[in-house]
Amino acid sequence: MGSQKSAMKLTIERAALLKSLAHVQSVVERRTTIPILSNVKLEGRGGLLSLNATDMDLDIIEAVPADVVRPGATTAPAHTFYEIVRKLPDGSQVEIEHDAESGQLTLRSGRSKFSLACLPVEDFPVLSGGELPFTFSLSAAELKTLIDRTRFAISTEETRYYLNGIYLHAAASDGVDVLRAVATDGHRLARVEITLPSGAAGMPGIIVPRKTVAEIRKLIDETDGEITVSLSETKLKFAFGDAVLTSKLIDGTFPDYERVIPADNDKVLVVDCKSFAQAVDRVSAISTEKSRAIKLALEKGSATLSASSAENGSAVEEIEADYTSTPLEIGFNSRYLMDILAQVEGDTARFAMADAASPTVVREMTDGGAIYVLMPMRV
Amino acid sequence: MGSQKSAMKLTIERAALLKSLAHVQSVVERRTTIPILSNVKLEGRGGLLSLNATDMDLDIIEAVPADVVRPGATTAPAHTFYEIVRKLPDGSQVEIEHDAESGQLTLRSGRSKFSLACLPVEDFPVLSGGELPFTFSLSAAELKTLIDRTRFAISTEETRYYLNGIYLHAAASDGVDVLRAVATDGHRLARVEITLPSGAAGMPGIIVPRKTVAEIRKLIDETDGEITVSLSETKLKFAFGDAVLTSKLIDGTFPDYERVIPADNDKVLVVDCKSFAQAVDRVSAISTEKSRAIKLALEKGSATLSASSAENGSAVEEIEADYTSTPLEIGFNSRYLMDILAQVEGDTARFAMADAASPTVVREMTDGGAIYVLMPMRV
Repeated sequence: MGSQKSAMKLTIERAALLKSLAHVQSVVERRTTIPILSNVKLEGRGGLLSLNATDMDLDIIEAVPADVVRPGATTAPAHTFYEIVRKLPDGSQVEIEHDAESGQLTLRSGRSKFSLACLPVEDFPVLSGGELPFTFSLSAAELKTLIDRTRFAISTEETRYYLNGIYLHAAASDGVDVLRAVATDGHRLARVEITLPSGAAGMPGIIVPRKTVAEIRKLIDETDGEITVSLSETKLKFAFGDAVLTSKLIDGTFPDYERVIPADNDKVLVVDCKSFAQAVDRVSAISTEKSRAIKLALEKGSATLSASSAENGSAVEEIEADYTSTPLEIGFNSRYLMDILAQVEGDTARFAMADAASPTVVREMTDGGAIYVLMPMRV
Repeated sequence: MGSQKSAMKLTIERAALLKSLAHVQSVVERRTTIPILSNVKLEGRGGLLSLNATDMDLDIIEAVPADVVRPGATTAPAHTFYEIVRKLPDGSQVEIEHDAESGQLTLRSGRSKFSLACLPVEDFPVLSGGELPFTFSLSAAELKTLIDRTRFAISTEETRYYLNGIYLHAAASDGVDVLRAVATDGHRLARVEITLPSGAAGMPGIIVPRKTVAEIRKLIDETDGEITVSLSETKLKFAFGDAVLTSKLIDGTFPDYERVIPADNDKVLVVDCKSFAQAVDRVSAISTEKSRAIKLALEKGSATLSASSAENGSAVEEIEADYTSTPLEIGFNSRYLMDILAQVEGDTARFAMADAASPTVVREMTDGGAIYVLMPMRV
């Protein structure tokens, strides 16, 4: 009832507000049946405006310097608020005032004045607390590696919810403690690792949901410094300078992925990643949109890619490759193959195959840590 | 059967082939029930490969220099052919050979070999001839003006098929003979004119279909020279250097648009286009996605834009404007208003209004030739 507590008033730079608002509004779902979840929580206090948005699984809070005339808090429609700030002229100042009496948030900038309907700050959901017993630091580059080189393999099948994220866990790799990221959709698997950061020893294996992965990924590009990661068995928190993202984890058991990585594949093909990927792309111009199938025919000293479809015709291309084993014909989904080749570091990739029906292992020559597994297709 | 006539063989530069193929494949519909319409006709003869595609309403033919070893002709799947050429390495040469015996077109480049199923060249439809008695030249800039400043107003309502294009006709404007382009969807109208080119006098009024407009527009950007336009009452031909585009016209009667352009609107508002458009954009952040409505309130020496929606709230912005008439409140679709402001040449636009229910006329100050009409909305 017009309490002083809610009569927030502050002035803020449009550019700084826009940057943070872009981050937080991205978490807000376009279609939600719970009105308060369409809103961003705004709280002005002690020289800062803090912006908070949530979808009940993922929560982001970011603070921006502001000239706070009167402290207070409210919530306003996130996407409309963002659209307005986006359209204000570059270099402008924004005056934000909450009138608790009318329940309106007023934005003034230049000759423009906007009024937005607010919802009570008390109704804004708070992601339940709970301890996050494990805390460690990652560089932006490390976190980027773990995400970029695995996320393409995340499953989108909702029934296999436990595959709808990146499995992050501590492991031992040739006697070295590592932090491993794994994703798979049953057709391909990506496993990438970095040295285990101090503080991560003994951490539980966690499955980070796809949407959280996407939001973190956006924030990485604007961060130079270290990212502090805190976690429990059910929750994960990333602190990037001014932004803190907290996420629930997928409550499921990630499959025992080590069992699907064959250790004894003895038919080895070494290719130049770039030219091989280009050849796969060319030959797949003939594959049908649906199957994307291409065939790799290997003989001692010769490797040939081919594709054919009743609709389109056929394609064949000899590739430069190093192969000295017994002859093999094996089919792959060309898109999956290109996804993996795009992530391999260094110029060359090493394919280890057993036969046309068993999983193929792809490794890079520069770093033993990244492993990709690809199921063949019948062609 | 395997007649020498069809045993085409030639070599061509990938870059030149790709450029022309990009143009012609664009005309080919993705979904067609007539197989031959998915194909591009290829004809090698006299140092040129000519590429021809059609959707039966629109026909494009383009010639590319080629080293023709054996002349001949066939047809091959346009989109697959384009995809292959697009994926071949930069700087490569392509050998194209048609084997009439097998009905296959073979493409060879580097280590790649592609075979495409052909359809007989005899089955490829030829847009029926007929005289095009009117011929004139336009510069690329003139044709660009006629298209860009009107096409946004083309109707997409299929039931009003006679509005699904740009109406091109000769007219007299203040005693000067002009070539006029007009488009309207019933909510807004755009009328642009240039001096009547020699040869266009007496031409019939024609309605150029939307797809033809789009294809011509793509070709303009790659043309510097003059474009030769030939037409009859039913057909239109554009010759751009190496490409010739022929189109059927919309068989309908364009409405008497002059009747909807009011001559006596006496309430005049003069605004700076850019800042007015930005204000409209800002204020419309509040409008609902559906209505896009904004209100303009005018009084002597004052102009205010506003918008409100039950969902989002309200916005109001005073704008710098020159208005000296009696007070008026009038509503517009903000997107339509911005479409027009984006086309006005020069810094200022002149709005002439009668009342809140009658069409508003927008003119530019620099050129009397372009006129835009906008129907108001109830707000």
